[in-house]
Amino acid sequence: MPATDGSNATHSKPGRSRKWLRPRLDWLLIFVPIAIALRFVPALENPTALFIVSCLAIIPLAGWMGRATEHLAEYLGQGVGGLLNATFGNAAELIIALFALSRGLTGVVKASITGSIIGNVLLVLGLSFLTGGLKFSTQKFNRTAASISATALTLAAIALIIPTVFHQAAAQVPVELGGWTPTKEQALSLPIAVVLFLTYALMMIFTLVTHRELFGGPDSHGPACDAGAELTLMETEAGAHGSWSIRKSLTILLVATAFVALISEFLVGAIEHARQTMGLTEVFVGVIVVAIVGNAAEHSSAVLMAYRNKMDISISIAIGSSLQIALFVAPLLLFASYLFGTPMDFEFTVPEVVAVVAAIIIVEQISGDGESNWVEGIQLLSVYAILAILFYFLPDVHH
Amino acid sequence: MPATDGSNATHSKPGRSRKWLRPRLDWLLIFVPIAIALRFVPALENPTALFIVSCLAIIPLAGWMGRATEHLAEYLGQGVGGLLNATFGNAAELIIALFALSRGLTGVVKASITGSIIGNVLLVLGLSFLTGGLKFSTQKFNRTAASISATALTLAAIALIIPTVFHQAAAQVPVELGGWTPTKEQALSLPIAVVLFLTYALMMIFTLVTHRELFGGPDSHGPACDAGAELTLMETEAGAHGSWSIRKSLTILLVATAFVALISEFLVGAIEHARQTMGLTEVFVGVIVVAIVGNAAEHSSAVLMAYRNKMDISISIAIGSSLQIALFVAPLLLFASYLFGTPMDFEFTVPEVVAVVAAIIIVEQISGDGESNWVEGIQLLSVYAILAILFYFLPDVHH
Amino acid sequence: MPATDGSNATHSKPGRSRKWLRPRLDWLLIFVPIAIALRFVPALENPTALFIVSCLAIIPLAGWMGRATEHLAEYLGQGVGGLLNATFGNAAELIIALFALSRGLTGVVKASITGSIIGNVLLVLGLSFLTGGLKFSTQKFNRTAASISATALTLAAIALIIPTVFHQAAAQVPVELGGWTPTKEQALSLPIAVVLFLTYALMMIFTLVTHRELFGGPDSHGPACDAGAELTLMETEAGAHGSWSIRKSLTILLVATAFVALISEFLVGAIEHARQTMGLTEVFVGVIVVAIVGNAAEHSSAVLMAYRNKMDISISIAIGSSLQIALFVAPLLLFASYLFGTPMDFEFTVPEVVAVVAAIIIVEQISGDGESNWVEGIQLLSVYAILAILFYFLPDVHH
Repeated sequence: MPATDGSNATHSKPGRSRKWLRPRLDWLLIFVPIAIALRFVPALENPTALFIVSCLAIIPLAGWMGRATEHLAEYLGQGVGGLLNATFGNAAELIIALFALSRGLTGVVKASITGSIIGNVLLVLGLSFLTGGLKFSTQKFNRTAASISATALTLAAIALIIPTVFHQAAAQVPVELGGWTPTKEQALSLPIAVVLFLTYALMMIFTLVTHRELFGGPDSHGPACDAGAELTLMETEAGAHGSWSIRKSLTILLVATAFVALISEFLVGAIEHARQTMGLTEVFVGVIVVAIVGNAAEHSSAVLMAYRNKMDISISIAIGSSLQIALFVAPLLLFASYLFGTPMDFEFTVPEVVAVVAAIIIVEQISGDGESNWVEGIQLLSVYAILAILFYFLPDVHH
Repeated sequence: MPATDGSNATHSKPGRSRKWLRPRLDWLLIFVPIAIALRFVPALENPTALFIVSCLAIIPLAGWMGRATEHLAEYLGQGVGGLLNATFGNAAELIIALFALSRGLTGVVKASITGSIIGNVLLVLGLSFLTGGLKFSTQKFNRTAASISATALTLAAIALIIPTVFHQAAAQVPVELGGWTPTKEQALSLPIAVVLFLTYALMMIFTLVTHRELFGGPDSHGPACDAGAELTLMETEAGAHGSWSIRKSLTILLVATAFVALISEFLVGAIEHARQTMGLTEVFVGVIVVAIVGNAAEHSSAVLMAYRNKMDISISIAIGSSLQIALFVAPLLLFASYLFGTPMDFEFTVPEVVAVVAAIIIVEQISGDGESNWVEGIQLLSVYAILAILFYFLPDVHH
Repeated sequence: MPATDGSNATHSKPGRSRKWLRPRLDWLLIFVPIAIALRFVPALENPTALFIVSCLAIIPLAGWMGRATEHLAEYLGQGVGGLLNATFGNAAELIIALFALSRGLTGVVKASITGSIIGNVLLVLGLSFLTGGLKFSTQKFNRTAASISATALTLAAIALIIPTVFHQAAAQVPVELGGWTPTKEQALSLPIAVVLFLTYALMMIFTLVTHRELFGGPDSHGPACDAGAELTLMETEAGAHGSWSIRKSLTILLVATAFVALISEFLVGAIEHARQTMGLTEVFVGVIVVAIVGNAAEHSSAVLMAYRNKMDISISIAIGSSLQIALFVAPLLLFASYLFGTPMDFEFTVPEVVAVVAAIIIVEQISGDGESNWVEGIQLLSVYAILAILFYFLPDVHH
């Protein structure tokens, strides 16, 4: 039964009460046009207002994304549904990063890659485990699928360490004897990007073709909405109104994602202004703030799924999204940087490398046993808090 | 049946033979007053003698602690009993560290934190696995409980790495542009200590309240002494004389812990003299010698439990003690350092960080499968030996 | 049924068709005398030809080694068979390293130790998982055995990190106050080598004596060749001709190993010439090329076993070989270096340490669940490719 408050307690039909409840969240959609107005009408320019309005506008949009993904998952299986969600979530980030890249801001791009990885793996997964764990004592998930993703994250971590190790080692040799130069760093990074990209492609074949059953197909589990008695977080109508068609789900997913991408960009623009007034460093904004905002969609979907005890979707959103950033978005951005004429390399700063490695090690440990509980969520959030403290105090090196 | 030697073979009543055996260990208690005399009677001052006498005196005291803890475990469950043991073991270390801190010796305090973590995780657990493994081919333990502790250790390791990474990265920026200063290191360490402390508090709620059954409650297993046929290591009378009351157990535990703390302090005082005559460095004494002595109580309890195939107690003593040092004692000492007016930070030396990370990585791997055998004990002890070799050769940097 | 091509399709007896097939591979044995002639007849000196001919000659020899090992495994159990294989594989490398050591080339020896570890753990195991995984959807193996080996590898990784950490830390102290000197590095390395060596000896007792059943004895599984319907990769006659005697297996194993060692040495000699003409660095040749060639035997055996779904042999060849290099061959070489009067230490370069640690972390993760599939093979090979890219671009530091 859905949660109802006093004003709806007299309604006898659940479907009717839901009709009353749903619009209350959807009323927040009013902030979408307000955000657009604040952004594009010069007279209304006010970054702080734009920031707050964008935050409010993104909530119902993310909710629609979550519902559309859940309906699609009925047809595609939990794993593929999660993959789909991750892809649409990262589409926004990819667009923002391409903008930054076209202006040569490779440092910002790298910081947002770092932030997206640790944000998804620690913050999103931590909140999912915590939310789900407060309702269910222990939640179980597919160990094999989680383990393959975790291993791919280790691969990504190694790929991020190597260019930094290369710089440190090669810098000890004079340039005339083959020592470090920015060109060599780029020459090293390009084939590494190719290896990551090919690995990602092969992993997609594994997930979608040869071992599809591992990731949950339409026959391997009942429809996602069969649990009629489940408490719904966002008052989805799925139970009452039946399943959406694939076409309807896809259309809503695409439209909602487009708006999330648009509003995310407003947010990012407004944050730069907030950074200066609040005295935050660029690295903190790139790694922590942009990543939280940019991943709001994955965030709400993963937490919602955890709350419904669909941990496999939750984990494939959180880990899958990090994975996609590391193995797909990062190489794509490196390839794109050559098109823009500002070749990027994969050399991250030492604190970024340590943050990514720490995040990946702890998530592997926690996901290794195929079970989660609320204290594991707390542990992931604690690591995120410690890394956020590091990036808060860290001065900007790129000056 | 208890092990009996030739002189007792004619006694038909096991209870009687035990009465004859027990005093033989308790006779060592005579060294407690001797140690006190050597320490406080000026005419008898002789640090080397005090060292040897204190070592002998600590053995029966640790034995009494082990027995009292075992009796308490009957009422509180294995996990909580282990936690209790770890707390009483660390009480001694906390007192010693507070003494050192009041004199501004933050380097010694940090070395003893490092040493306690690696000592418990490698030496105590290694000897437990080896001792238990020589008697039982394979010993099983609760994977979930071990895994939650191991994850918390990873969290602690990350918290110890971050301040060192911060120093290295921030030192590259000039101070006037926000570069590294000791004050910044302290400002970074304080919120990290708060995060660790809160995580520890929440983990206690998990262990003692929401998921108590995972850690073994009074109903989840039979009384700890039901295995009548088990061979007893220290001739405990539990089987013959029945259970102790909670009050008796607690009183003996408190009195024995107080004496262990007292004698431990004698040992630490005497070791400083031995250090200079034997040519040992401060870091070796802090990380290796103080830690072995300071953890003697956990040591004997954990090994005794492993010998009795109660691996869950054994592991919760060893890992739980490290955990408590890292997440509870270390933050508490940092908070206390502000009271003493000598603010401490969490920046450890690189060898200390490497030692802690190495110890935690190998213990996680070994405890990950929920089984132990003697060769896993050897592997933990080998890592301890390698780290001890490192600290033996390492020159004192703080000069 | 064996794979048969068109020309053999009319043969009705499998035994007969195999007779026709086997010689086709064995014809490659003609390259063994050709390689010997190219090496020892001065008129025929041509390093490039020698390189190609040696590569061709090693294929049938490695095939004979694989068959002999498989037959021995019927008597000795899978684990011991794998150990045996690893020993014979590493005999060749040990001989080559002793040659290099006698000329004081400790850098080359260390590079080949690094290369053997990462080559076995990433390349050999990766190709095994890939080959086996293309035939079988999921392959299972003994988790406990794999986990003990993986833990021993972690121990080895820690032992390799410590001397490098020692150098960095001790170098900050002036030499007159006990700072870093090459003699101290050797003094630190010698007891570490002793610890590794003792650990290896105790692990052998565990594997061969106290826990033999874990690693598969003659009674714990059927004969290795009972699967009459299996597709044979190298047209072994085992199924048709019955088992070989222990004596026959051992003789063939010894003769084939001797020739593999001989031809491997030809290859190594020829590679040095190829290095200069192809512009490769010494470190790339040591870590990548020598290791691939030196481990060709383990390589083909492990891949063959994976193809036959005997994953326990495959893994004990690949991981066991790395283990033996790290815990047995490396200490032995260090001890031998004192005999040659050119004491070696265990200080590896930072890229070497990172490569070994990365390899070990990912293999532990992948082998932790007791299952493999083709994408895990791809992941291991990707890490190998990334490390190979690093060593390709890395300039030689030892000039």
